[in-house]
Amino acid sequence: MTKLEEKTLHSEEIFSGKIISLHLQDVELPNGKHAKREIIKHPGAVAILAITDDNKIVMVEQYRKALERTIVEIPAGKLEKDEEPALCARRELEEETGYECDSLELLTSFYTSPGFADEIVHVYIAKGLTKKENAADLDEDEFVELEELTLEEAEQYVKEQKIYDAKTIFAVQYLQLQEALKNK
Amino acid sequence: MTKLEEKTLHSEEIFSGKIISLHLQDVELPNGKHAKREIIKHPGAVAILAITDDNKIVMVEQYRKALERTIVEIPAGKLEKDEEPALCARRELEEETGYECDSLELLTSFYTSPGFADEIVHVYIAKGLTKKENAADLDEDEFVELEELTLEEAEQYVKEQKIYDAKTIFAVQYLQLQEALKNK
Repeated sequence: MTKLEEKTLHSEEIFSGKIISLHLQDVELPNGKHAKREIIKHPGAVAILAITDDNKIVMVEQYRKALERTIVEIPAGKLEKDEEPALCARRELEEETGYECDSLELLTSFYTSPGFADEIVHVYIAKGLTKKENAADLDEDEFVELEELTLEEAEQYVKEQKIYDAKTIFAVQYLQLQEALKNK
Repeated sequence: MTKLEEKTLHSEEIFSGKIISLHLQDVELPNGKHAKREIIKHPGAVAILAITDDNKIVMVEQYRKALERTIVEIPAGKLEKDEEPALCARRELEEETGYECDSLELLTSFYTSPGFADEIVHVYIAKGLTKKENAADLDEDEFVELEELTLEEAEQYVKEQKIYDAKTIFAVQYLQLQEALKNK
């Protein structure tokens, strides 16, 4: 809606790193006043809700430096430049868990922090999992521990705040919804 | 799990703004190697799934500079320093929509982007809404348009990607789950 638009008067790149860049913008508000905007640019990411044949959810425990703790998440990773999200999802699932999947379907995509960042996460559901014989090496900077949880265990992890991030809480709620719809 | 921990060797603040700060860290990985981490610090936020007496969801359309477009979201806002999240939720609901609420309950909290940011969002459900006689002024930098949607309309907005962010997609799915459980 154009009447809400904020026009960029000036944009300055403060930092450009391996993952994010930071931009400080002067904008003109709809009322003509000026304001500052702090904007993080991010390449986008995928996340994979992978379900084993015995109905377990494949999760990874990982240290998150921003939080200074580990959390348990569905496998996820950043998009490489020009990478197609579905291919990225298959790659990340294999790299983080050693699983290949027969079927992969997009559940939803969402911006994680629209107030300051353009990061989008594409959430896929993967089924028909098979473990690769010689699972690919992890990224050398990445240390994760695999866990396979029932939906009940995942719900308990949410309560205990071991599962504590947007994409994984969405994924657990998605499975709760499917259960509730199935049992109607 | 300490064996996954990344020790900080050095941390440098690159930028400190009104909303976020950016820190570049050298860390020691579990295997002894060193790596860089780009970390955004954020004060945290609240979001409010507010339901009117005629069962509409209160939403706000807002221009998001990071996305260069408007999206439709549940009302939300940043925590002030030392502000109690439930008080912040009542304040933001009133400031953005003019509604006061009788009941306010925490649904969940989640980190939005644990890969690079410590932003946490506390999502509340608010009921027993009454419009204030002389609704408080918005923040002077904030321009929002109020919309009140049925669940079906909100589901349609998700499909059309007018609703496109983590907290709002979580909130819509939460209501879908409540509906499915009720009709069992």
